[in-house]
Amino acid sequence: MQAPGTLYLVPSPLDFGCAAQTSLADVLPVGTLVIAARLEHWICENAKSTRAYLKRVNQLQPLARALQELQIVELPHEVHKKGDHAGQFDARPLLAPALQGHDVGLVSEAGMPAIADPGSSVVRAAHDLAIPVVPLVGPVSLLLGLALSGLNGQSFAFVGYLPHDAATRTRRIHELESLALKTGQSQLFIEAPYRNAALWQALLQSLQPGTRLAVASGLTLPGAVNGSSSVGAWRQRAVPVRADTPALFAIGR
Amino acid sequence: MQAPGTLYLVPSPLDFGCAAQTSLADVLPVGTLVIAARLEHWICENAKSTRAYLKRVNQLQPLARALQELQIVELPHEVHKKGDHAGQFDARPLLAPALQGHDVGLVSEAGMPAIADPGSSVVRAAHDLAIPVVPLVGPVSLLLGLALSGLNGQSFAFVGYLPHDAATRTRRIHELESLALKTGQSQLFIEAPYRNAALWQALLQSLQPGTRLAVASGLTLPGAVNGSSSVGAWRQRAVPVRADTPALFAIGR
Repeated sequence: MQAPGTLYLVPSPLDFGCAAQTSLADVLPVGTLVIAARLEHWICENAKSTRAYLKRVNQLQPLARALQELQIVELPHEVHKKGDHAGQFDARPLLAPALQGHDVGLVSEAGMPAIADPGSSVVRAAHDLAIPVVPLVGPVSLLLGLALSGLNGQSFAFVGYLPHDAATRTRRIHELESLALKTGQSQLFIEAPYRNAALWQALLQSLQPGTRLAVASGLTLPGAVNGSSSVGAWRQRAVPVRADTPALFAIGR
Repeated sequence: MQAPGTLYLVPSPLDFGCAAQTSLADVLPVGTLVIAARLEHWICENAKSTRAYLKRVNQLQPLARALQELQIVELPHEVHKKGDHAGQFDARPLLAPALQGHDVGLVSEAGMPAIADPGSSVVRAAHDLAIPVVPLVGPVSLLLGLALSGLNGQSFAFVGYLPHDAATRTRRIHELESLALKTGQSQLFIEAPYRNAALWQALLQSLQPGTRLAVASGLTLPGAVNGSSSVGAWRQRAVPVRADTPALFAIGR
C-alpha cells in the first residue's frame, strides 16, 4: 500500500486585502518557504489569492513547478460561509492526492488555516484518513495581538465576531466583561474593518472605566496601530482603529 | 525629550528542555532573527538560556555585539511562580533602557513571551510608559496545536493547567467537556510532561465516547506526535503522549 503524503498547514502573511504589503521574509521562516515552494497540491479558500501568495513565495524560494502546473482546489462556499463545523462538510475527497502519496498544502487567505479561518474540516479529514498533519510556523494575528495586549496569556478565549445589532452587542460586551473580570480569562474578538469604529465606540460606552481594553490593527504591517490601557484612559484618547484594516480587540483585568 | 526605544516580543524555539533541537531557520523568519541579533538589552526568565538562544541566533545572523556585552535582566521569581497578574508586580523599572532610547527584547524560555509564559507585566508596563511594542513572528505551541487539532478554531479557550488532585481534575474535565459540547468552544490545556500519561488516562476515563480529543506533543521537533479523534476511537489505540516532552490537549465536538 502506498504511504500517504503529509498535509502541511501553511501560514500566509496578514496583508490580505490591505493596502500595505509585508515582506514574506519578515513573517515566514525559511523552513516554511522551502516546504511551500515544493508542494504541488493545494487546498485553499480562493485559488486566485493562493496563486498570488505562491508568486511571492517564488521570489524568495523558487517553486518546484510552474504555477499553472499546480493543482489548486477551493473549499466549497458552504465552508466559507458557515464555517467547518456547521453542515457536516466531508473534506475527505479533497485529500485524494495525499492518499496517492502526494504532500498537500492547506492555506487560508491570511494567517494560519483553521484558526479564525476555514480549514479545520480538512484537518479532521486528514486525521480520520491517517494522513500525517504538520503545522508550519508563520504569523497568527490572534496570538501576536494577545501577546501585545499585556492581558492574561495564561487563560484566554477567542470568541470570534460580536453581534451587529446594537442592543445585542451591548449585552454580549457586558457578558464578556463579566467573564473576564470574574475568571481572569482574557476575551478576544474581531470585527469586519468597516465596523471597527462602531465597535470601538460601543466598547468605550459599555465597559467599566477600570477594565483593560487592548486593540491591535495592521499586525506585521507598516502603519500598525496598537494600544492597551484602562477604558477610562482610552476615553481621553483618539479612536485608534481604522476602517480599512482588520483589528483584534481584547478585554481583561 | 529622548524618543523611547521599542519593546520587541521575541519568540524562541519550542525545544527548551527537550532532547531534540529545532533548526532556528525552520521556526523563526529572517526578519525575527535580524532584529534579535541587533538587540543589546534583554528581559527574560533565565539569563543562561537566553544566552544559549542568542548563541544559536548568532550562527544564522551575527550578533551586533558579543554576548558578554549584552545587558540581560531576569524577571523576578515571583513572576515565574505566580504569573504576571498576581502580586501586582511593577515591571516599569526593567524598561529604563527603553526610556533612554534603546530597543529592548522580551523573551521567554520557549515560544512567544506573555502567552502561556511570563511577560505580560512587561508589556503592560511598556504601554503605560508609551513605549512602542512590536511582536515578532515565531512558533507558538498553542496555535500550532489548535490548528493541528481539527477542532473549532473560530471559538476556543486556553485554560492553562488542570488540577492535580484526581477527583478535582475529573470534575474540571467534565466542566470543560460540558462547555465545549454546549457552546462549541474548543478547550485547550497543558500539563507538565511527567504528568502527561496520568492526564491522558483521566481524559479517556472521564470524557464521553463521542467527544473529540486532540493531542500534540513535540511541536516543530523531530519525533513530534499528534492525533485527533473521538474518545471512543482513542480508547482502542496506544497512549500517544511521552513523559519527556510538553504536550497540548484539546477537547471539542
